[in-house]
Amino acid sequence: MADAHEVARDQLRSFIERIERLEEEKKTIADDIKDVYGEAKATGFDTKILRKVIQIRKQDKDERAEQEAILDTYLAALGMIELPQDDD
Amino acid sequence: MADAHEVARDQLRSFIERIERLEEEKKTIADDIKDVYGEAKATGFDTKILRKVIQIRKQDKDERAEQEAILDTYLAALGMIELPQDDD
Amino acid sequence: MADAHEVARDQLRSFIERIERLEEEKKTIADDIKDVYGEAKATGFDTKILRKVIQIRKQDKDERAEQEAILDTYLAALGMIELPQDDD
Amino acid sequence: MADAHEVARDQLRSFIERIERLEEEKKTIADDIKDVYGEAKATGFDTKILRKVIQIRKQDKDERAEQEAILDTYLAALGMIELPQDDD
Repeated sequence: MADAHEVARDQLRSFIERIERLEEEKKTIADDIKDVYGEAKATGFDTKILRKVIQIRKQDKDERAEQEAILDTYLAALGMIELPQDDD
Repeated sequence: MADAHEVARDQLRSFIERIERLEEEKKTIADDIKDVYGEAKATGFDTKILRKVIQIRKQDKDERAEQEAILDTYLAALGMIELPQDDD
Repeated sequence: MADAHEVARDQLRSFIERIERLEEEKKTIADDIKDVYGEAKATGFDTKILRKVIQIRKQDKDERAEQEAILDTYLAALGMIELPQDDD
Repeated sequence: MADAHEVARDQLRSFIERIERLEEEKKTIADDIKDVYGEAKATGFDTKILRKVIQIRKQDKDERAEQEAILDTYLAALGMIELPQDDD
């Protein structure tokens, strides 16, 4: 019967190898994502803006609208943008 | 025949949805990794040290040995460790 | 006369201590920044939006306008916003 | 007497400008740190190991010794290092 040391040894190796396999899979997918952005860029799309769109699509629509409104208020208060008259 | 606008629109949507699907897969695997670390912790392993082991297993053995030797030299020079006599 | 070892030892200690002093200063300022955000929050400002404003103020105005225009075009193409008629 | 809008406007500007000044100071110090590492590199020191030494000097000595011991135990269990006989 395997003694406690051997059990712990096998458990350790199993955890390490499972994590390494998963990290390998994760890296493969990260490379796939980079490839898609590369394809998009080659097609003429702006990848920085693509990332922004993807970030926005994760946001709750109302929450985003509220944040945009606060941002405009702050920018207007600093004289960086003009708010439409009725908003002021 | 789809005009240029429609083609670009479909291309944009396709790139966005491909990236979102891949990011979803990546997130699932990241959660799986977190679960394995959770299991290891529950089994009594130190997850901080597990991460260190995984990092070390990625390194070239000779390169790691060389860095450890330089580190020991610096630590000894600062009086933080004692080097075995023949190393000094 | 100090031998080469001693010179290297003193140089190492000097570099380490200079870096540590600078890192200490940097941490103090980072804490000051956190305090100002805390004050702003207590005054009722949205700190997430404050960060966004500070980020925008670092950007070139024309570059930002161009990026906003591209972003709107992509969002409209995905049916996420309506563009004013003349922009379409 | 300044109305509430003006008060809020001035407060907003003051917070923004205070944060920007502090961020500027922080960036200057970050550049200074980079310069010192540059000097150390030019003198022949390994900057990657310098960073490691500085990280170690922040750690509690006993905590570091304990972590090193656990790390060695895990590495030995995986057959990556040999532990001195009495440690095993």
